[in-house]
Amino acid sequence: MNTTRPNFIDQLHNAWHTQNSLLCVGIDPDITKMPAPLRDMPAERAFFEFGQAIIDATAPYACSFKPQIAYFSAHHAEDALQELIAYSHKHHPHIPVILDAKRGDIGSTAAQYAIEAFERFKADAVTVNPYMGFDSVEPYLAYSDKGVIVLCRTSNPGGSDLQFLNVDINGQSKPLYQHVAHLVANQWNATGQCALVVGATFPNEIKQVRDIVGDMPLLIPGIGAQGGDLAATLAAGLNARGTGVMINSSRAIIYASNDEHFAQAAAQAAQETTIEINRLK
Amino acid sequence: MNTTRPNFIDQLHNAWHTQNSLLCVGIDPDITKMPAPLRDMPAERAFFEFGQAIIDATAPYACSFKPQIAYFSAHHAEDALQELIAYSHKHHPHIPVILDAKRGDIGSTAAQYAIEAFERFKADAVTVNPYMGFDSVEPYLAYSDKGVIVLCRTSNPGGSDLQFLNVDINGQSKPLYQHVAHLVANQWNATGQCALVVGATFPNEIKQVRDIVGDMPLLIPGIGAQGGDLAATLAAGLNARGTGVMINSSRAIIYASNDEHFAQAAAQAAQETTIEINRLK
Repeated sequence: MNTTRPNFIDQLHNAWHTQNSLLCVGIDPDITKMPAPLRDMPAERAFFEFGQAIIDATAPYACSFKPQIAYFSAHHAEDALQELIAYSHKHHPHIPVILDAKRGDIGSTAAQYAIEAFERFKADAVTVNPYMGFDSVEPYLAYSDKGVIVLCRTSNPGGSDLQFLNVDINGQSKPLYQHVAHLVANQWNATGQCALVVGATFPNEIKQVRDIVGDMPLLIPGIGAQGGDLAATLAAGLNARGTGVMINSSRAIIYASNDEHFAQAAAQAAQETTIEINRLK
Repeated sequence: MNTTRPNFIDQLHNAWHTQNSLLCVGIDPDITKMPAPLRDMPAERAFFEFGQAIIDATAPYACSFKPQIAYFSAHHAEDALQELIAYSHKHHPHIPVILDAKRGDIGSTAAQYAIEAFERFKADAVTVNPYMGFDSVEPYLAYSDKGVIVLCRTSNPGGSDLQFLNVDINGQSKPLYQHVAHLVANQWNATGQCALVVGATFPNEIKQVRDIVGDMPLLIPGIGAQGGDLAATLAAGLNARGTGVMINSSRAIIYASNDEHFAQAAAQAAQETTIEINRLK
């Protein structure tokens, strides 16, 4: 529907190899953390200029970009988000763009969110929440070229409140996040468009998910500002071919500096992270 | 923060009594279902004119309005949503407006979504998803006048995929949605700002939730187009004082007619629903 880009999973496999990178650069533009000249602009313009500079600077070191929609929506800057994704697609067409939106709603409403993500913003993939079940995810899968990245185990403190509860499945007890991994791998992923979010806070749990889902791509936040252990994360998350993961870093890269050399600092942080990932993998 | 309206829970209690209504009118503007003159307008203008007509027509029969953000976001119509909420607050100040957004993300991102809901759109309450746990809900609670309505048991077919799984809590087995009700009632609701979404598809489950949460307000979708049983829903959901619920109806009211008399038809459908609710309660 209304895209000429390859499908997301192919884009990702290509980017892992041609970029020699497993790094996903998270774009969470917070005006209070930007360099002074940007802080003084209208949010809409600052967000685009900041994002554009980050994208150009980090593109050599990234397998994907992941803008977080809340940062834009909080400040009436959806147009900047849309322009940013279009800019990335035009200037860095080989790098997929994931819209981090974590939507979840009944089918008829999910169909509207899918329009938002794929027709309005033209993202290559979107993050979604599994709490409302399969029919809340299905409308995104109707876009056969797009990726659908389901929350499984999140890296925040409250991630354990529900996801770590033991659920009873046919007499077997397992944590809810593992059941979500099973559901997605064995039922929701019939079209091969799915991936999972698994936080870096608990490398042992990444290993459990990897064992359940085979080769499925994992988006792994929680490195950097959130403090996850990179070596343990890679040991747990890589697939048999040494890929299969997007190691997300947002704040540690995009706010590496808040002076006028922020883009150069971001490039350096992205390069160092990618080198470190490749050294450890 | 930047509001002069009473707190949401007080607004709701007042509306239940002064309006003599338990009806929440869901506003899901779908351009394909609108009358011909509106269908031919730019989406932004059609959404505002449609929403304004629905709000004015149904206000005498409603205890709350609930616009669904996806319908607006899919069509670049956030400004119409913002104007609609401002219009409702100005012309029907006694009726709280719930932003149905079902957001869920880590704390720093949730803080941005809270800005979106409460500072940008100035909603009186917002729906949120519990899958990422308490720190994903906490930033909304920082707005002490606002309501935070947590998804518990949803009315869609996939609602059972996760919510109906039995979880083990201190050796006791209970469905996940009941644990969410416990968590919200006993831990997350320390400030008294919370409510729960519990679908009308399973009245027995509404009863279970009511027994867990005491007087907490329940937002109950699934009546009307989704087919829930109104009498059984009321018997299960009402609190001891004969209130405590917002019975949501969207499509059955706002698309009661798609000719030029749609607002009059919506008023009639809202009035009939309110009368039926009051007869059965």
